[in-house]
Amino acid sequence: MPALNVAQKLIRSHLIEGEMIPGKEIGLKIDQALMQDATGTLVQLELEAMNLKRAKTEVAVQYVDHNLLQTDFRNADDHLFLHSAAQKFGLWFSRPGNGVSHPVHMERFGKPGKTLVGSDSHTCAAGSLGMLAIGTGGLDVAAAIAGQPYYVKMPKVMGVKLTGTLPPWVSAKDVVLEMLRRHDVKGGVGKIIEYYGDGLKHLSAMDRHVIANMGAELGATATVFPSDEETRHFLRSQEREDDWTELKADEGAEYDLHDEIVLDELIPLIALPTSPGNVVPVREVEGKPISQVVIGSSANPGLRDFWIAAEIVKDKFASPDVSFDINPTSRQIIQNMIDNRAFANLIKAGARFHQSGCMGCIGMGQAPASGTISLRTMPRNFPDRSGTKDDQVHLCSPETAAASALTGKITDPRDMEKLYGMTYPEYRSPEKEIINTDMLVAPPENGEGIVLKKGPNIKSLPQISPLRDNYEVPVLLKMGDNISTDEILKAGAEVLPFRSNLPEISKFAYIVIDETFYDRAMKSKEEFGGHIVVAADNYAQGSSREHAAIAPKYLGQVAVIAKSYARIAWQNLVNFGILPLEFVNNNDYDKIDQGDMVGFKNLVANVKNREDIEVKIVKKDGKTLTVPTKHSLSDRQIRVLLVGGIINDFKQKLAD
Amino acid sequence: MPALNVAQKLIRSHLIEGEMIPGKEIGLKIDQALMQDATGTLVQLELEAMNLKRAKTEVAVQYVDHNLLQTDFRNADDHLFLHSAAQKFGLWFSRPGNGVSHPVHMERFGKPGKTLVGSDSHTCAAGSLGMLAIGTGGLDVAAAIAGQPYYVKMPKVMGVKLTGTLPPWVSAKDVVLEMLRRHDVKGGVGKIIEYYGDGLKHLSAMDRHVIANMGAELGATATVFPSDEETRHFLRSQEREDDWTELKADEGAEYDLHDEIVLDELIPLIALPTSPGNVVPVREVEGKPISQVVIGSSANPGLRDFWIAAEIVKDKFASPDVSFDINPTSRQIIQNMIDNRAFANLIKAGARFHQSGCMGCIGMGQAPASGTISLRTMPRNFPDRSGTKDDQVHLCSPETAAASALTGKITDPRDMEKLYGMTYPEYRSPEKEIINTDMLVAPPENGEGIVLKKGPNIKSLPQISPLRDNYEVPVLLKMGDNISTDEILKAGAEVLPFRSNLPEISKFAYIVIDETFYDRAMKSKEEFGGHIVVAADNYAQGSSREHAAIAPKYLGQVAVIAKSYARIAWQNLVNFGILPLEFVNNNDYDKIDQGDMVGFKNLVANVKNREDIEVKIVKKDGKTLTVPTKHSLSDRQIRVLLVGGIINDFKQKLAD
Repeated sequence: MPALNVAQKLIRSHLIEGEMIPGKEIGLKIDQALMQDATGTLVQLELEAMNLKRAKTEVAVQYVDHNLLQTDFRNADDHLFLHSAAQKFGLWFSRPGNGVSHPVHMERFGKPGKTLVGSDSHTCAAGSLGMLAIGTGGLDVAAAIAGQPYYVKMPKVMGVKLTGTLPPWVSAKDVVLEMLRRHDVKGGVGKIIEYYGDGLKHLSAMDRHVIANMGAELGATATVFPSDEETRHFLRSQEREDDWTELKADEGAEYDLHDEIVLDELIPLIALPTSPGNVVPVREVEGKPISQVVIGSSANPGLRDFWIAAEIVKDKFASPDVSFDINPTSRQIIQNMIDNRAFANLIKAGARFHQSGCMGCIGMGQAPASGTISLRTMPRNFPDRSGTKDDQVHLCSPETAAASALTGKITDPRDMEKLYGMTYPEYRSPEKEIINTDMLVAPPENGEGIVLKKGPNIKSLPQISPLRDNYEVPVLLKMGDNISTDEILKAGAEVLPFRSNLPEISKFAYIVIDETFYDRAMKSKEEFGGHIVVAADNYAQGSSREHAAIAPKYLGQVAVIAKSYARIAWQNLVNFGILPLEFVNNNDYDKIDQGDMVGFKNLVANVKNREDIEVKIVKKDGKTLTVPTKHSLSDRQIRVLLVGGIINDFKQKLAD
Repeated sequence: MPALNVAQKLIRSHLIEGEMIPGKEIGLKIDQALMQDATGTLVQLELEAMNLKRAKTEVAVQYVDHNLLQTDFRNADDHLFLHSAAQKFGLWFSRPGNGVSHPVHMERFGKPGKTLVGSDSHTCAAGSLGMLAIGTGGLDVAAAIAGQPYYVKMPKVMGVKLTGTLPPWVSAKDVVLEMLRRHDVKGGVGKIIEYYGDGLKHLSAMDRHVIANMGAELGATATVFPSDEETRHFLRSQEREDDWTELKADEGAEYDLHDEIVLDELIPLIALPTSPGNVVPVREVEGKPISQVVIGSSANPGLRDFWIAAEIVKDKFASPDVSFDINPTSRQIIQNMIDNRAFANLIKAGARFHQSGCMGCIGMGQAPASGTISLRTMPRNFPDRSGTKDDQVHLCSPETAAASALTGKITDPRDMEKLYGMTYPEYRSPEKEIINTDMLVAPPENGEGIVLKKGPNIKSLPQISPLRDNYEVPVLLKMGDNISTDEILKAGAEVLPFRSNLPEISKFAYIVIDETFYDRAMKSKEEFGGHIVVAADNYAQGSSREHAAIAPKYLGQVAVIAKSYARIAWQNLVNFGILPLEFVNNNDYDKIDQGDMVGFKNLVANVKNREDIEVKIVKKDGKTLTVPTKHSLSDRQIRVLLVGGIINDFKQKLAD
């Protein structure tokens, strides 16, 4: 038996189908599942469509953390629906206000050695505890809850060796920003990133959460940490030491790819608009005036993150030009912040405290003023995601954020020493946190007879047709590199309440890129029976939201042709019957223009037989040419795609 | 010199024009002014239009408490605009997150013996400190800030004698609910309600705030309390004892009207949907299941109100079927709640804490689920105000709300004794509160040179034409009694961000009553040059928002014909050039139908000469009849109306 790294151990112990050869599809047994509310309403509708009696995973939890503003009946109706569905299908229900899914899951349910899928791209955060945790589309989560394996291409494992210790004023966020500086937003595609080395000794489990969480921004399939004494310490502080098991790489284990970070050499970093990969030293942009600072989110959720901000601003006051917003992670965190005085110190220094949840990270409130800089400890700064068009969101550590809140301009936190005579406050994580589990509702023994509470905004899913042999459809949109799901189907307070209403939410498809898209797509659906879109590299990166596939499908999307895809989105497209084609020659990208007509022939047979798919292009002037494309679907995915997606596939299975 | 009551003393000491004869217009010197943000953007645009150099009031404060959700750039842009305007015009600026205007103003600026106008209907809350505090339209506030007198019809004074002490589980909210049970939502119209008697000894200044605040729901011009030892105690707790002066009615002072409440006889009361006047004992509706409890708002803003709720739920847990929302009044209250453990106790019992502000009271978030009951300590439950159509909002005390949060159904708090073995917790108000003034920004010595920061959603006001002699316009809407400004121009997260953008906000005029109104009005404006609407008694009660006048004006509203008007709205109509006509014979109300055409002739002369205004009505079948109407405008108001409102009037004054 060869020496295995942690990622390989997790995969081997859950392997049901396939071989551990990078790039080949494998099927994994899934132990745990999580959903947030914005994706969860669809998952629950899918579980209903599958006629599920009871969840087959060890633990499945429906969280409510995205849609908390309740500006009309829709959010509150969704909460009642999710609660009833959790009871019916045997899921835990984390009530609105209990907190952000990832840190709460880590505190209450995370277990070393287990697998987890979640309908949220930051599910990878649970890798901090030695889990294999993968963010994916809701339909994949529904399937896992129903006891199906989770299918994914076997990733390569990138080992990142951490050595030394972090200098003062530099923290875990700067570690993952350094990773983004080096590898950008697609550097992790097709990979599990596994951290190891002596440097881990000085990174708490919550620090690891910060690093694991933003693995999503690197495009990684998962982030993995070993389970060690720090993990044990964390579980003990949560009164769950019994759930601890050690998990470490075998002596002599190897990695497919290598990197190394000397922690002592790190400096405060910041991601500029409008990509988390756009990282520079804080020094390079210091002095720019800011209008907002936000501390919180799943990317900096820990007690330490709030405490350090509170220590920095203690007995001082936020600049009058800055809205200093605190986005507490959970009720438990609030209780502990009251206990360790961080809460009072922040309030005293001018903080605006908000309810526990995802808030501005997903555009649900606290949008910044036009044309002004907002500094956030959040994971993402894609265009328009904050809710303000042409926003100027910068991502940074709590140290950088808090220091800047005081000065009213982007500030390297190391300057706190000369500006305020401060030395870097040393955090001691408590041996025992205040534990708060009252808002986690356990499922009843038996969910039969529980009626789903469906408000008027909760609509059943429409039927999807199987793939046809022939299409002649227009190219409705041509896009560039790194198009995010925020651009395909934006978040924000205007859109999120429609997450369980497909006809309505489809009106927002691609609206960030082209406001005419919906009208053109509806016209094209009527006239030609559909459309395709074209993109360059890393199409549909970012959030796991499957609405970025199901809404385009609803509008008649037959296929996407791209140079490459982000992992979750690629899977989602297939799950909803959209064909994700790749260029055989990437240069052909330049030969297709928006407005061209494209023709497919014998599509079903060609997809099935993995033959090159010739796309006939008719230019506006009548000239024609042909471009070869291909797909890299597994046999299972081919079956799913041809019948029109996973829901149809399930229905066939049930019928058989 | 005759013996005077407190209201008369306040008026006499500020009388600039007119005589103290009930029903006659008087002009008062105004010492203080306040604005909230949702009305304040318009006030600042008005101050700009008036070319104001510096506020002439002793104190004027621009608060930000309504539009805090920031779901896009508009709220945050407004905050920057208001901050810049406050600096320019010499106003204090209470930053977003600092708290709700009325309690903060009371804590920091309220002074016995002073007059205050505010562009918020609950401004009357400051009567708790022995002030004459009147909620009014923004333009009146702008005028007061510019040093103009405030004009109002001399009200009658209703003396309400309070005797005895409140029984356990009954609190100040039940006192004002009892007033609403007796007098309904127009029982206070044209009146100042002055409380006096031995019962006052047991009502703290904040208890009085609760009672004074909901004077707005009675339709009263103001609520007045004497300034006594309780007032002094409160100001001392705010470190402002120097601002205290005694103010009490003269021996033998009389009142125009009389009422009396024996406090010992009160029981827990509740206002049913959809009017604050729809009051019954809690016992009558106990046992109904609820989905939400909200504690907070300007109607129950005090430390005691949160503390009592916290004591009731301490070491227990809110029903899993209830969203238990806490709407803290201000940062200062939060700090004190941390200090007295109320904050931790509430969080532990399952509370969702929200940022300090008006929140769900104005439909800015936390809308309840469809068809479910929400119990709130807020002042209003007009239809749709919560943000949920057909909402079921009930208004009650913190005691009733907290007890019901535990049981999940409407519960008489006196049952806490048998249900939980509790005795009523006794509150001791602290000798000294934690004071927090850091988020109140003082104006600079000189505001010249400060540039107003106007985001793209902030639009200048359009020109209003003078009144014409002849009109032939349709009756676009016929309405019943007690139409609120929430129905004329709704609040809520969808609408509030347009408060500084008249063309956009006008699309929501009367939408609660008739979704076709905007389209019909725009058509009618083009075809006939305007329209009128008809209403029964107490037209435009509720919020002071002048958008309920300026938006209809923008849509071409020439006149309203009603049986009677709410005070603030009547003033607002004139301020924006809409003629508020009254029926000479109230029975004629039945003779006019929606869709009728109405004709006016010689309108200018008739208005000026106070002659009956004959309205010629042409029915759909061609039949005609004539109905006499009248107005009760002062000479000043006639002048203002004829030129097309106060802005035009100001411009003329400046030109002269």
